[in-house]
Amino acid sequence: MSDLKQKILTAAASELVEIEKALSNNLKPYVDLVSDVAGHIIFSGGKRLRPLLMVLSARLCGYTGDYAVTFSTAIEYLHAATLLHDDIVDDANLRRGKPVAHSQWDDAIVVLVGDFLLARALTISAGTERIEVIKVLSKLTEDMSQGEVHQLMRKGDTSLAEHEYLEVIRRKTAVLFEAACRTAAIIADASDAEKEALSEYGHNLGIAFQITDDLFDYTLDTAEFGKEVGADLKEGKMTLPVIHALEHANSTDKEKMIKIIKDDNFSVEDFKALVGMLKKYGGIDYTEKMAAAFIETAKDALSIFNPSESKEIMLDIADYVLLRRV
Amino acid sequence: MSDLKQKILTAAASELVEIEKALSNNLKPYVDLVSDVAGHIIFSGGKRLRPLLMVLSARLCGYTGDYAVTFSTAIEYLHAATLLHDDIVDDANLRRGKPVAHSQWDDAIVVLVGDFLLARALTISAGTERIEVIKVLSKLTEDMSQGEVHQLMRKGDTSLAEHEYLEVIRRKTAVLFEAACRTAAIIADASDAEKEALSEYGHNLGIAFQITDDLFDYTLDTAEFGKEVGADLKEGKMTLPVIHALEHANSTDKEKMIKIIKDDNFSVEDFKALVGMLKKYGGIDYTEKMAAAFIETAKDALSIFNPSESKEIMLDIADYVLLRRV
Repeated sequence: MSDLKQKILTAAASELVEIEKALSNNLKPYVDLVSDVAGHIIFSGGKRLRPLLMVLSARLCGYTGDYAVTFSTAIEYLHAATLLHDDIVDDANLRRGKPVAHSQWDDAIVVLVGDFLLARALTISAGTERIEVIKVLSKLTEDMSQGEVHQLMRKGDTSLAEHEYLEVIRRKTAVLFEAACRTAAIIADASDAEKEALSEYGHNLGIAFQITDDLFDYTLDTAEFGKEVGADLKEGKMTLPVIHALEHANSTDKEKMIKIIKDDNFSVEDFKALVGMLKKYGGIDYTEKMAAAFIETAKDALSIFNPSESKEIMLDIADYVLLRRV
Repeated sequence: MSDLKQKILTAAASELVEIEKALSNNLKPYVDLVSDVAGHIIFSGGKRLRPLLMVLSARLCGYTGDYAVTFSTAIEYLHAATLLHDDIVDDANLRRGKPVAHSQWDDAIVVLVGDFLLARALTISAGTERIEVIKVLSKLTEDMSQGEVHQLMRKGDTSLAEHEYLEVIRRKTAVLFEAACRTAAIIADASDAEKEALSEYGHNLGIAFQITDDLFDYTLDTAEFGKEVGADLKEGKMTLPVIHALEHANSTDKEKMIKIIKDDNFSVEDFKALVGMLKKYGGIDYTEKMAAAFIETAKDALSIFNPSESKEIMLDIADYVLLRRV
């Protein structure tokens, strides 16, 4: 484990334990099967990054109520709901190194348990008694579902431009990080400036998180990654390293790359050749630099807050998003 | 068209026009495909029963604000979202006489558009500025998803008891009718007694609605019904006429019925034989009587309200639930 990861886990140890406890205490389905399927996704080694950011943000804004940890489960349940629905969408086989839910249960059950988790998230969010929180979360769910549809529509389209890719990941990933931080500021009765700062932090962190996640598809092996390497490519998902390399490749190489991308059954050699071209045309480097720039923006956004333990952990988490290997 | 249906449509004509207009004005997706899929389910000849009940209930409680019609779209979007997800669950082919969405688009898209509609419903509900409304709707979504899972788990189980069937339809159908009426009372700042009365009306009307809907599978032909007759049986869905007949059949007939129910490829003759036995053992009669009893309870619940045009229409709608042929 990296030193930075260890530092974060130690500093946030008590919060992480409380979040974990709350995640099992607040599920409460009446049907056992719902518990099994929901448990499969919720207790499968998630990093709890989003609920942790929510709890830390609330503290950063001086929140003194006792609902933060409970409310943070809403963020994780919402996240789990979208994972369940996305895995059907992606037709993926592995998630966090384990078979995905819909390879074990009927799609039907998985869809419904996703709906249950979404609803549970809402019930818990309504417990904040703040309609503003609900507005953020419903807007975010509109964004996420449309971001996924947008991505599906552009599947396999090698002309996808960088700005469109960024629009997709903004909606499908960044909005949830943003919402985790913003809703925390809302329940803390924070100032508008604080709300904006935390939204900015969460949003940029989320973009960087998705960019690096997409990059892993080309830089990590399956054991490290916990899902199949090359999976994005198989699904025709165009991500930043590929988009950048395609834009800069000469016509011969561009043609070769497109051939591999369009081939549903590309070989390991094909994949290696593609990764070689991503490197040759700076796709990997450019992607790393982009992610780093978003992280810098995220960290800058926190400058309005005085130094504190929570702020320190949030800055470390931002660095960790770049350095992590999963 | 029956006289009663005509009477309702005339009395509620202006509300129905306003609801229809609001349904297109409030959808607002940014991705065209979302519009297409959502439109397929929303503008496919739904009766608008739930939003109409919401608008009428608000008026019954003396609501004078201008948000009732807009808010009523949330109820219909929520309903449409569950239809999209349920059709994947049911693996149905027809809904309202048209091919279901997931025979036309990928399951993935249908799931995501369902999520979008759910989110849209929430955003609109948050516009009421009442957290109590959100609590009712999130609880209802928890109930509906679990009711569907419960039903799926008991698929093909010929030992399903009447009380368990009623529990399933309470969760999967009645709660939405109840929520439509209850949330109307909430935005109207109605008294607790009025809230309870409208909940009671909606709940019992919803149970009766589902009981008669399930009955149509054995009494209507496909053209009238708008979905495949015998579809419930093919999916192993145990409904009241069958449950009652199985409970009262002699052992020979019970065995024959179970054989047909368990047969995935039963013939038209088999189906007719089964319907014959449902009649022989009072399954059809009993089901009609049960539905009528729930309708009586629904109507009685409105007795605390003074006579008014809205009340009159709501009483007519209750009668119509029994008399309708779709």
